[in-house]
Amino acid sequence: MIPSFELHPQLAADCTVVGDLPLCRLLLMDDANFPWCILVPRRPGVREIHELAEPDQAALLQEVTRLSVAMQSLFAADKMNVAALGNVVPQLHVHVIARRVGDAAWPRPVWGAVPRRPYSEAEREDLVELLRGCTAAAGPPMGEAS
Amino acid sequence: MIPSFELHPQLAADCTVVGDLPLCRLLLMDDANFPWCILVPRRPGVREIHELAEPDQAALLQEVTRLSVAMQSLFAADKMNVAALGNVVPQLHVHVIARRVGDAAWPRPVWGAVPRRPYSEAEREDLVELLRGCTAAAGPPMGEAS
Repeated sequence: MIPSFELHPQLAADCTVVGDLPLCRLLLMDDANFPWCILVPRRPGVREIHELAEPDQAALLQEVTRLSVAMQSLFAADKMNVAALGNVVPQLHVHVIARRVGDAAWPRPVWGAVPRRPYSEAEREDLVELLRGCTAAAGPPMGEAS
Repeated sequence: MIPSFELHPQLAADCTVVGDLPLCRLLLMDDANFPWCILVPRRPGVREIHELAEPDQAALLQEVTRLSVAMQSLFAADKMNVAALGNVVPQLHVHVIARRVGDAAWPRPVWGAVPRRPYSEAEREDLVELLRGCTAAAGPPMGEAS
């Protein structure tokens, strides 16, 4: 039996699911300080980028760059931050964060820099819609997360 | 005239050059708290991964994963941290850091977590040799940085 993919509970608790790209589940971190997405390859048991099969590595790169281009334009970002850390949540996940000069943590990295500021429900819904639209425009149609 | 690649002075000040991979200059960060390398694509004026041409993106991914595999094994890392931030140094560079449970910043990200601890000259030379050996073994021979 092939083990099935399940989103790590910490990511599920901290984020809203935007949808599924060909390889990754796309999440929006619930922190209004920064436009902050997370891509999680739907491959069970993988912790490191280099543990992915080569075609999956290429797909991950493509999804990261497409999302990064979309977010940079959508949020007029001065710099994109792209990072796979995973010291706390072992499931492989890649942060893609739109940074602006003068944002709450600038120029420091975002992790642990300032207290998280949850979105209002309306803000979160708007942002999820926006992200669905722009990531769908940048690639194949986004599926519903299962 | 094609603009030539020049390592950003901040990276040159903080790091030792290990050598050149096909795309990137490989650097060792001068911080004995963590085995910490940086890959800098030798492409002038590039700030974001998505600004690289697609073949260069693929080469970067390959160099990141090869280095990551080599470092994980060499330093018995519990987790590899891979990140392109660039909020302070705009020249595109990718951090590849071997993390161990209980290291000086664990489980936090390394940036700004603890004061930098420079290597002794002997330690640094040994480490550069090790990195040259293992990255050469994992791919095409490493060139001298020009």
